[in-house]
Amino acid sequence: MTQSPIEGFVAVVPAGGVGSRLWPLSQPERPKFLLDLLGSGSSLLQETLERLAPLTPDVVVVTGVAHAEAVLAQAPGLTASNVLAEPSPRDSMAAIALAAAVVEHRYGQRVIGSFAADHVIQNPGAFREAVRTAVGSALEGYVVTIGVEPTEPSTAFGYIDIGDPLTPGVSLVNQFTEKPDGETASRMLERGGFAWNAGMFVVRTDVLLGKLAALQPGIESGVRRIAAAWDTPDREAVLAEVWPTLTRIAIDHAIAEPGAAQGGVSVVRAEFGWRDIGDFAPLADVLDADADGVVRVACEADVRVFGSDGVVAIGVTKPLSVVGIDGAVVVETADALLVTTRSSAQLVKDAATEPSATPS
Amino acid sequence: MTQSPIEGFVAVVPAGGVGSRLWPLSQPERPKFLLDLLGSGSSLLQETLERLAPLTPDVVVVTGVAHAEAVLAQAPGLTASNVLAEPSPRDSMAAIALAAAVVEHRYGQRVIGSFAADHVIQNPGAFREAVRTAVGSALEGYVVTIGVEPTEPSTAFGYIDIGDPLTPGVSLVNQFTEKPDGETASRMLERGGFAWNAGMFVVRTDVLLGKLAALQPGIESGVRRIAAAWDTPDREAVLAEVWPTLTRIAIDHAIAEPGAAQGGVSVVRAEFGWRDIGDFAPLADVLDADADGVVRVACEADVRVFGSDGVVAIGVTKPLSVVGIDGAVVVETADALLVTTRSSAQLVKDAATEPSATPS
Repeated sequence: MTQSPIEGFVAVVPAGGVGSRLWPLSQPERPKFLLDLLGSGSSLLQETLERLAPLTPDVVVVTGVAHAEAVLAQAPGLTASNVLAEPSPRDSMAAIALAAAVVEHRYGQRVIGSFAADHVIQNPGAFREAVRTAVGSALEGYVVTIGVEPTEPSTAFGYIDIGDPLTPGVSLVNQFTEKPDGETASRMLERGGFAWNAGMFVVRTDVLLGKLAALQPGIESGVRRIAAAWDTPDREAVLAEVWPTLTRIAIDHAIAEPGAAQGGVSVVRAEFGWRDIGDFAPLADVLDADADGVVRVACEADVRVFGSDGVVAIGVTKPLSVVGIDGAVVVETADALLVTTRSSAQLVKDAATEPSATPS
Repeated sequence: MTQSPIEGFVAVVPAGGVGSRLWPLSQPERPKFLLDLLGSGSSLLQETLERLAPLTPDVVVVTGVAHAEAVLAQAPGLTASNVLAEPSPRDSMAAIALAAAVVEHRYGQRVIGSFAADHVIQNPGAFREAVRTAVGSALEGYVVTIGVEPTEPSTAFGYIDIGDPLTPGVSLVNQFTEKPDGETASRMLERGGFAWNAGMFVVRTDVLLGKLAALQPGIESGVRRIAAAWDTPDREAVLAEVWPTLTRIAIDHAIAEPGAAQGGVSVVRAEFGWRDIGDFAPLADVLDADADGVVRVACEADVRVFGSDGVVAIGVTKPLSVVGIDGAVVVETADALLVTTRSSAQLVKDAATEPSATPS
């Protein structure tokens, strides 16, 4: 019965990060996960929640205080108690540990799965199958990650070095590797036995908090104190006291890497069209081009191209002509106009972060 | 007394041509010569008239009927009788011959000098000196052209092959050559004795019309008929009958080239920062860049560049960031947005001429 919800499973959705390489679409006050980046009518957060809905009715979103209201506005199915607002960003370990501690304090031991609010998944059915398999391995006590079958020697992601098989669809993780250079990535793909680390973790709350108690005891005791106060009038006071003391560390470094060394991390290999849309180049790749080769998103105005292959136009409000620039990317918002190319899209964060100034 | 007007000299200013490689600034209803292309506060036509004013109070502008009103509005010093409106474009020979015939019919024999309304001249004093020298040669019966000292092996202009000296500053023209390829242009510059053909001609009206009677008798008799009727109630009727019959030919082919073969064409060599601003690349070259390397014209909004050298921004109304495109050219008008590069600027005419259509 793979279509029914998974008993005792809670989905955790960390919703953080501005996505500054998608500026000016993304801005601190409208981060990437709140955007309808694909022009589908739904934000990435909404698509994430929709994708998880068949797996469980229980979803917890962890986001910054500045965005809690916007998250609730976009997700009418969520109650305020299911949106955990962080007073300040303290990286992914604190966020996920907080969710785990609140879930366990409220409901007792559960399996949680953590899935970022700003990823794109083209085949949600295959994704959910992978999660179901992962929950099975988590129930056995593993920290389970989902390893995405690499389709190219990408240097944008970390890789999972896959070890011995455990159960059907599940293997041990030998180790995690940092983002490789191109040559290393090509060698890994040739050799096989590697998957992209999509940053998805499925784990029993007691396993997560137990490992944390051993590896990052300050975080473990801190989130347990906060969780105990969360649904009481003391929440703000305890948060104000404890939250700023939590170590800033990613879950990969805090739990996954040391856990793998101890044989406690497993991986479910899957292929479901996963994309981390870091900048306009991968965004253009997942969108369909029109007959003239132009990718158009939310363009009110006519877009014409001359001697320009693979143009991307987003939000354009005035008739636009692109002449002689392959891969040109033109993005218009209410307050900014960006002109770049797919191959320069990584540099866009410079425009996002440098303060505006008119030369004298 | 080189500062006083030249006795008996009439300046003729052909004001035609849309300048479609400067689209969307230039459009059929607002051709290049009516534009303040340099952001100086004056249109190219106004700068042309201002440049000629110290040479003569007598100026005749030849333009299309659609633009006669705009020309008068921009040039309050002109009277309506000094704006000759062509019912349709019939190339430069018909336009200049019409002006010559009207001038001679009104005032008797004069020297006319023809100077396009859309050229840029950075040193007007040197230009006027060259014209004064040219008038002297024209009075001796020559068709005089002004040859611009080449500063680079340009393939955008025709060249003048300079022959024996005639008088100080004036030489015979051996022949005119079409726009050369790059190799030929380089060879000509190495060898020396060549000048750019800037399309400027100074000639006595009787010499011009006399040569025309021999070489293009249909044009000669036609413009004389029209000129006789111009200041009478018959103008429109005669124009309607005769104008459409005039051969479409450039003055270069009609008079200058065959005249040179007969030894009747002279050249004044000069250097006065002449530029025929054909597209956005030469436009950018004549404009001053700001400290950040950006050429800004009439930009209401902030323009920032990242990893982009030599950017040109014209008329931009919304804060613009250009990321990773060297030589990017961004032009905004009330009805269009153009994104191109200096090196692709020649292709802009495709955008100007292709009808707009949204792909289905």
